[in-house]
Amino acid sequence: MKQLNSAAADFWQQLKDLQAFETAQDPKIDQIVADICHDVQTRGDAAVIEYTNRFDGMSATSMADLTLSQEALKAAFERLPEHVQAALTTAAKRIEDYHQHQKQTSWQYTDADGTVLGQQITALDRVGIYVPGGKAAYPSSVMMNAMPAHVAGVEEIIMVVPTPKGERNDIVLAAAYVAGVTQIFTVGGAQAVAALAYGTATIPQVDKITGPGNAYVAAAKRRVFGIVGIDMVAGPSEILVIADGSTPADWVAMDLFSQAEHDEIAQSILISTSAVYAAQVQEAMSQLIDTMPRKDIINASLANRGAVVLVKDLDEACEVANYLAPEHLELSVENAQDWAPKIRHAGAIFMGAYTSESLGDYCAGPNHVLPTSRTARFASPLGVYDFQKRSSLIQVSQQGAQPLGEIASILAHGEGLTAHARAAELRLDK
Amino acid sequence: MKQLNSAAADFWQQLKDLQAFETAQDPKIDQIVADICHDVQTRGDAAVIEYTNRFDGMSATSMADLTLSQEALKAAFERLPEHVQAALTTAAKRIEDYHQHQKQTSWQYTDADGTVLGQQITALDRVGIYVPGGKAAYPSSVMMNAMPAHVAGVEEIIMVVPTPKGERNDIVLAAAYVAGVTQIFTVGGAQAVAALAYGTATIPQVDKITGPGNAYVAAAKRRVFGIVGIDMVAGPSEILVIADGSTPADWVAMDLFSQAEHDEIAQSILISTSAVYAAQVQEAMSQLIDTMPRKDIINASLANRGAVVLVKDLDEACEVANYLAPEHLELSVENAQDWAPKIRHAGAIFMGAYTSESLGDYCAGPNHVLPTSRTARFASPLGVYDFQKRSSLIQVSQQGAQPLGEIASILAHGEGLTAHARAAELRLDK
Repeated sequence: MKQLNSAAADFWQQLKDLQAFETAQDPKIDQIVADICHDVQTRGDAAVIEYTNRFDGMSATSMADLTLSQEALKAAFERLPEHVQAALTTAAKRIEDYHQHQKQTSWQYTDADGTVLGQQITALDRVGIYVPGGKAAYPSSVMMNAMPAHVAGVEEIIMVVPTPKGERNDIVLAAAYVAGVTQIFTVGGAQAVAALAYGTATIPQVDKITGPGNAYVAAAKRRVFGIVGIDMVAGPSEILVIADGSTPADWVAMDLFSQAEHDEIAQSILISTSAVYAAQVQEAMSQLIDTMPRKDIINASLANRGAVVLVKDLDEACEVANYLAPEHLELSVENAQDWAPKIRHAGAIFMGAYTSESLGDYCAGPNHVLPTSRTARFASPLGVYDFQKRSSLIQVSQQGAQPLGEIASILAHGEGLTAHARAAELRLDK
Repeated sequence: MKQLNSAAADFWQQLKDLQAFETAQDPKIDQIVADICHDVQTRGDAAVIEYTNRFDGMSATSMADLTLSQEALKAAFERLPEHVQAALTTAAKRIEDYHQHQKQTSWQYTDADGTVLGQQITALDRVGIYVPGGKAAYPSSVMMNAMPAHVAGVEEIIMVVPTPKGERNDIVLAAAYVAGVTQIFTVGGAQAVAALAYGTATIPQVDKITGPGNAYVAAAKRRVFGIVGIDMVAGPSEILVIADGSTPADWVAMDLFSQAEHDEIAQSILISTSAVYAAQVQEAMSQLIDTMPRKDIINASLANRGAVVLVKDLDEACEVANYLAPEHLELSVENAQDWAPKIRHAGAIFMGAYTSESLGDYCAGPNHVLPTSRTARFASPLGVYDFQKRSSLIQVSQQGAQPLGEIASILAHGEGLTAHARAAELRLDK
């Protein structure tokens, strides 16, 4: 792992370099995706079936072969061992409870002159959830995407998940069952995104698509943005641990591993006020690494993008965190709640020794879909608010139309928009 | 204007055709914009100055020539006639009051076992507002973009506005003054968007860019999305008026004009339950059209994309509105408040005879930046919530870490993520 020290003259440049990550869009992928999208838009189900057979090694002859019923989901759930069923349902319940706090409701107020202003808040009608297949098939991801939509009141939650060579993942299907998914199609890639965005005879057009995917899925989401809503295009996962030495070193070591094990470009950074403690955590990592099945990925990730940063105090640690705007931030310090208000930019803030990121990933309640790559500067965790939208409400009274009409008339004439002005003037009392 | 009737067998197909609008991205524009963005990212201010001189007919030699001080904004405000000053400040005050209702605050709750969960809500640090120059320079647009950022608590609001051939618009600058813009650069186009997204020596990097622009600006915003946040890429403006005949026909006629006068691809649609009333509105339009300075644009817009739709009752009218998901919806009907809850998709709902869309455009209070092109199915008016973001808060107690650790361990092992499981297991009491 790289070793940085805030006392270095070029410290902030080092930090910047640490976080540099090439996210350039690949024009070749863009072109392939453009062709697939166009083909699915024009030929619908036939194109979906062809691409699925070609890319996922399937031999579907109709969309019925790529459709899973509610019964199939229920059966998958029932095939699981009882302790896994219980883990899924308890996690789902906690996630649901937390997300209920995010639900927004319509509001309005009335001016003294009787004019009513407000916002009407409604759920999206129908959303699509992309779930990757193969090695990155995560049931937790199904719940984290579907549950906020469900809590928002979305009536149709359509999930797409590729099943390469027909291989289905029971826990993923069970998670869909628990999280209230209404329909599943076993298709993936750009063709699945295109089908959800444009609709086909079988796959209904949705209003928004969320969920992670590979470079083709990301390019397809970017392309259909505007026709449907999308969530953020996610970058590699990151954890930043601020530690004052009060948490056992092996706990923090494992937290850093848990991010690094995602993939070789994931990023784990430890910030500490104590060089002694930082050395202890690194010693613990050396001790623990050989017990990790994903050892090679962890080592590659830590060597590529990991770092230990020494700072002079916790205020400086918060300053570094605000610059990095990490996806996951552990405040593994005493009185963590006192420090949280100093954090302006982070996807999620995990406070205190007992709050490992992994508890948040699965079952504490908050969403694990979080802004990556410094986008926490402007973006939020996936939430119920992503599946609700607002309509302004305006009812101007006759009395209210008088002063407002005068103002609108002046400003509209200032913009050279006469019809706008006249529409306001017609409502003025003669 | 096209005449549709819901009794026709192919009515819904006709509606779909009515709204079809080619929004394909132009690969040539994309390439030019990619080059400009790369150039600004690499060469900074020098590139900004060169493009500004070339595209806007300027002769700037340094960024100082492209920077306006707070004093310049104040001076612009003070040069305006008093009634215009008053119109701007009153409108700003109403917009501010309305947007105060949108401000969200942090929340948290504590489980029985002492675990704390919540969300910390903070303002973005710094945002960029794009304001078009030339004929589409709208002071109201400055206020509608800057004010929600201001109410959210954004500390730096950077505005960019091209001033072709050096021509500045006093009302636009005055609106910036009134709305709390902190800094203005007189640059536009893709180069302005790139400068805000990447930052230059003079123009600070922002966290989000909002505001309308031409095809180059839209392509640039789409390109930098992810590095910074952006608002929706807007399509042509639309109004849908549902009228039961209770509003004077000439008022509705003028409301349809006020949308059509924006440009040739704007869309004005009247839905009525009464053929007689629909004819009266069209008669009023014939009477009024010659008084309109933007007559040619209005006629082109109505011919291209305008329509009169006859429906059997107001329930059906609402159904049509939900399909079209219009940017602006006038419920020009008796007891409009009773019908609003039947509208699921609309950017803004204007209720009752006195609520012309233009009152909402300028000064009623709600934002006039609204989702277009059916995106009201998933998107909302620009608001304070676009300039705030959330961080999840999680503090798991020692007691809480026991059941959560068991669940996380089961699910993490199910996903093959051993370090995730071990991080949870380490927190279990021995």
